[in-house]
Amino acid sequence: MANEARTVEVRPDSYSYVFNPYREAVARVNPGDRVTIHTNDAFESRIQSTEDLPSRALATAKFLNPQTGPVYVEGAEPGDTLAIRIESIEPTRNFAVSALIPYFGGLTSTPFTRTLQEPLPEKVWVWHLSEDGRSLTNEDLGVEVDWDPFMGTLAVAPDLEAITALAPGPFGGNMDVPDVRPGNTVYLPVWNEGALVYTGDCHARQGQGELCGVALEITSKVTVVFEVIKGQTIEWPRIESESAIMVVGSARPMEDAARIANTELVLWLEEEHGFDRWDAYQLLTQAGGLYVGNMVDTTYSLVASIDKKYLPGS
Amino acid sequence: MANEARTVEVRPDSYSYVFNPYREAVARVNPGDRVTIHTNDAFESRIQSTEDLPSRALATAKFLNPQTGPVYVEGAEPGDTLAIRIESIEPTRNFAVSALIPYFGGLTSTPFTRTLQEPLPEKVWVWHLSEDGRSLTNEDLGVEVDWDPFMGTLAVAPDLEAITALAPGPFGGNMDVPDVRPGNTVYLPVWNEGALVYTGDCHARQGQGELCGVALEITSKVTVVFEVIKGQTIEWPRIESESAIMVVGSARPMEDAARIANTELVLWLEEEHGFDRWDAYQLLTQAGGLYVGNMVDTTYSLVASIDKKYLPGS
Amino acid sequence: MANEARTVEVRPDSYSYVFNPYREAVARVNPGDRVTIHTNDAFESRIQSTEDLPSRALATAKFLNPQTGPVYVEGAEPGDTLAIRIESIEPTRNFAVSALIPYFGGLTSTPFTRTLQEPLPEKVWVWHLSEDGRSLTNEDLGVEVDWDPFMGTLAVAPDLEAITALAPGPFGGNMDVPDVRPGNTVYLPVWNEGALVYTGDCHARQGQGELCGVALEITSKVTVVFEVIKGQTIEWPRIESESAIMVVGSARPMEDAARIANTELVLWLEEEHGFDRWDAYQLLTQAGGLYVGNMVDTTYSLVASIDKKYLPGS
Amino acid sequence: MANEARTVEVRPDSYSYVFNPYREAVARVNPGDRVTIHTNDAFESRIQSTEDLPSRALATAKFLNPQTGPVYVEGAEPGDTLAIRIESIEPTRNFAVSALIPYFGGLTSTPFTRTLQEPLPEKVWVWHLSEDGRSLTNEDLGVEVDWDPFMGTLAVAPDLEAITALAPGPFGGNMDVPDVRPGNTVYLPVWNEGALVYTGDCHARQGQGELCGVALEITSKVTVVFEVIKGQTIEWPRIESESAIMVVGSARPMEDAARIANTELVLWLEEEHGFDRWDAYQLLTQAGGLYVGNMVDTTYSLVASIDKKYLPGS
Repeated sequence: MANEARTVEVRPDSYSYVFNPYREAVARVNPGDRVTIHTNDAFESRIQSTEDLPSRALATAKFLNPQTGPVYVEGAEPGDTLAIRIESIEPTRNFAVSALIPYFGGLTSTPFTRTLQEPLPEKVWVWHLSEDGRSLTNEDLGVEVDWDPFMGTLAVAPDLEAITALAPGPFGGNMDVPDVRPGNTVYLPVWNEGALVYTGDCHARQGQGELCGVALEITSKVTVVFEVIKGQTIEWPRIESESAIMVVGSARPMEDAARIANTELVLWLEEEHGFDRWDAYQLLTQAGGLYVGNMVDTTYSLVASIDKKYLPGS
Repeated sequence: MANEARTVEVRPDSYSYVFNPYREAVARVNPGDRVTIHTNDAFESRIQSTEDLPSRALATAKFLNPQTGPVYVEGAEPGDTLAIRIESIEPTRNFAVSALIPYFGGLTSTPFTRTLQEPLPEKVWVWHLSEDGRSLTNEDLGVEVDWDPFMGTLAVAPDLEAITALAPGPFGGNMDVPDVRPGNTVYLPVWNEGALVYTGDCHARQGQGELCGVALEITSKVTVVFEVIKGQTIEWPRIESESAIMVVGSARPMEDAARIANTELVLWLEEEHGFDRWDAYQLLTQAGGLYVGNMVDTTYSLVASIDKKYLPGS
Repeated sequence: MANEARTVEVRPDSYSYVFNPYREAVARVNPGDRVTIHTNDAFESRIQSTEDLPSRALATAKFLNPQTGPVYVEGAEPGDTLAIRIESIEPTRNFAVSALIPYFGGLTSTPFTRTLQEPLPEKVWVWHLSEDGRSLTNEDLGVEVDWDPFMGTLAVAPDLEAITALAPGPFGGNMDVPDVRPGNTVYLPVWNEGALVYTGDCHARQGQGELCGVALEITSKVTVVFEVIKGQTIEWPRIESESAIMVVGSARPMEDAARIANTELVLWLEEEHGFDRWDAYQLLTQAGGLYVGNMVDTTYSLVASIDKKYLPGS
Repeated sequence: MANEARTVEVRPDSYSYVFNPYREAVARVNPGDRVTIHTNDAFESRIQSTEDLPSRALATAKFLNPQTGPVYVEGAEPGDTLAIRIESIEPTRNFAVSALIPYFGGLTSTPFTRTLQEPLPEKVWVWHLSEDGRSLTNEDLGVEVDWDPFMGTLAVAPDLEAITALAPGPFGGNMDVPDVRPGNTVYLPVWNEGALVYTGDCHARQGQGELCGVALEITSKVTVVFEVIKGQTIEWPRIESESAIMVVGSARPMEDAARIANTELVLWLEEEHGFDRWDAYQLLTQAGGLYVGNMVDTTYSLVASIDKKYLPGS
């Protein structure tokens, strides 16, 4: 799209803790540029060993989940859709961390689901990246897992609001959806001139649900290429992989996230793939996918999908 | 386990519309017997063509989802666990049906999630099974899908209660979870002498979530082999496949189903696979699966899983 | 309605732990009879002092919430509505008990909302009824509260199902709604010949929500008069007081209970009080009541109401 | 507190559609000042007759629920609590409006609880204020209701975030709780210098739940007096009336709002009224109130309360 695609490197001087339409851009890029963005981890790198218990290590951190951004994408205007092709995620250190944080996670009461019970114990796990960068191991578990990285957070600035970087939503945000991964393209609505992209919270990998609330947190540099789709308006984040199309819905209770993701996917099949609305509903009933991205954030993110092999012309 | 494993065929004279501890057994079988059970479809075979709109075809059906059972398994006693190895599901007709039923499904208001809105239009889809039995096609959609059958309903009788065959729960029931499939073993708690097994509602296939509420409904015969695990008590249904272990949680709101499934899986890893509790929580966070079986039944069913390759000794 | 209204006393030999259409009637009464029913407390009177911690006192209780019933009401048939006028609730002992039970209540994780946290501590409170029977006091709290009794549980047998006495639902059941009180009339759907009424779980009083899960539990005798409304079909329990009409909806999540109660109340205003549907919706918006009966049972019960002064002709 | 309490009138030049820590103050006032704030209605006064159907009247309104603010309160600092005593709400026109808006309200699917159903019909109701200002009537309903005004929205600016004026939360906001009424005092946490108060969305009255999503919307002037409670930190909005203390919790699903409100009230009773934690839990169980403020906003607001007569020393 751009005549001369550049390679742009974005190293932030400071981070944002909100997805914010009012913050000055840290970089301006053209569609088609290869943009490499450096990201901190969700804990501002304050947790590096099993001694760094969250209650101490995070005691002076007023906010968490630092974001790099906003990146201003030339030509993006309200009403457009921004396509973000994820080319790569490279680690910038040789370990990942996870932790049990008091009153945070899927199997504990939280500030949203309050009880009078005591918190779970704190614990930190350090996972070491193998020399070839293809797996991670943790000694306590005695388990080796594949390197399978993705961006926990990818957002555009909302319309008028400045929203905590802990939140997922129509703007993307802290979705914690493993399909935000290299090789895939994420589509987000544009509400502001330049789209104003934020990213961070990269994960070496994560299970579905991000159960304890903390994936394998890494510092990293991610490389993306933006395209602007003029005049196409979408309501919620979409993802396209080689084999499937997906919608991410984020809401509470969880069934509302499932309803959003599937309704949007039905309408997408109707509007862009030639299906009758009810036939689209039928197709997803018999062949759709529906997994939990996160069950721990301010709202839950669910991913509805359909294999491209069922789409006409494929 | 039984000295002389028999082949037993169960053809019901009538069906049950509740998972019922009080109903007389339709068959008594031994552990190890190969038991073939004939099942009707969820609509009592009342819908066979696109003309059979539910409001007419089901007008005189007071109850739906007829179950074959109970099958009495010799030796099963309260406090045991019943293992049900699913050997095969064979269709007993050459088509499957699905339908839009007023105020039923995932993208409509329902008797549980009431609104004052009009229902969606009714519609029936007939999917034809190919000659080789390996796929189904529907003309309206112009789509071919693989034959990938499972039992929508598999239950033991509850303790004291008789519960509608439309409900999933700790007893299994109408889970609508595709992993209740040939090759897998389902584990259910035993509350009654003989366990008292019910099954029905077989599906030629289904997407995750069973979005419109009606999968590819078939009549069929399913072949299973029971084993009784003496003195092992479980709380919720477990499934074992060649590659993974799983727990099914059923509840509303959907996050409660996710919490149940994952809590049970953490405790399973702790009690039977040697993990420290918090390490099990960590493992599921980084490598667990979590998909939606149904988002349409009286409670939602979610499936938490972990690949066997992460278990010690595997 | 009945020519010669009798006074009938129902003293059960045994209790039911399910709302059960299959259990033999403990009494047969006529509409218009004054029926006095003796009820046990929710703990089978196992907790009588602060020493009777639930984990010990209830250790051998397989089921809780014993119900007296069913009472067969002559002339009641499926499709009718049963009106139950509550005349009085008299205590049959001079104290009430409440308790903290592990993993039960509104501010703890539970078997439905599972977490990995430890339970809250156990505790028993004994509240002493004053000599004049008009108040209760507890020493630990140093508080006096008014005697304001109601039936925690009032049900008809469901259609085909036998449902735990811990559950509220369309059949009434364990609603824990303080408006099930003397002076009010409760209306329930009839699914079985004789309606098959169960009651129990009387409370000396309770706050909205029944927060810790255990109200001021008493043994008692309740006096009611039944009437059968032929050919009127209702979907959910209704209550009429001197000043208001109400509907009880029971579901999870809680908003679904609110939707049910209010939808039913809109339709009631439309069908029986001459309001246009949207005007009824408007009236409830500006003048309706909506409180939480219980936030602790298998489903939550919410009460939507409208003052009778807004109804035409009043 | 202030030596010379002034009377300050705040007439905005423009409105805010977010609770925003970055917006310049429209007025600076001292604690103790009597501050009269002019507010527009939730529709920017675009709906004034039954002809003004929302789809037309609101077509060019990008945002709704205009707020007057922020008002800077001298001396308020992060970590303090702001007390807002509501002295009066006076109407500035002689009618109130309500409306059915497509996909908005408690008994319809919404952008959060998505379905594929058609919306409810649109409708506008105009309610006329009586000459003496004590009641309102609507011709379609043929009903008269009391003038019982409150502020639908009362907020302080959040910490770092700018949040839509349609949202309730820990900052107060669009709670739609009738107890935000003259005679009562509302307590909110302070996160910014000057507290930065926003208000608007006044209602002539409203039922519990605000069922159709639109109360009796009015333009008005509200008179409040601020006090700053130094060094007292609260987590969620509190309300004090002559007879009761209350906490407002806002969340989805609704049970989470109930858990928040009640947990905060238990801790309030423990920390400031001398109750043992478990005794406070017991007291609320037997004597607490719990009603639904709104079941229509971005999160639901529930109000937990306890009568002051149960507090020591009262």
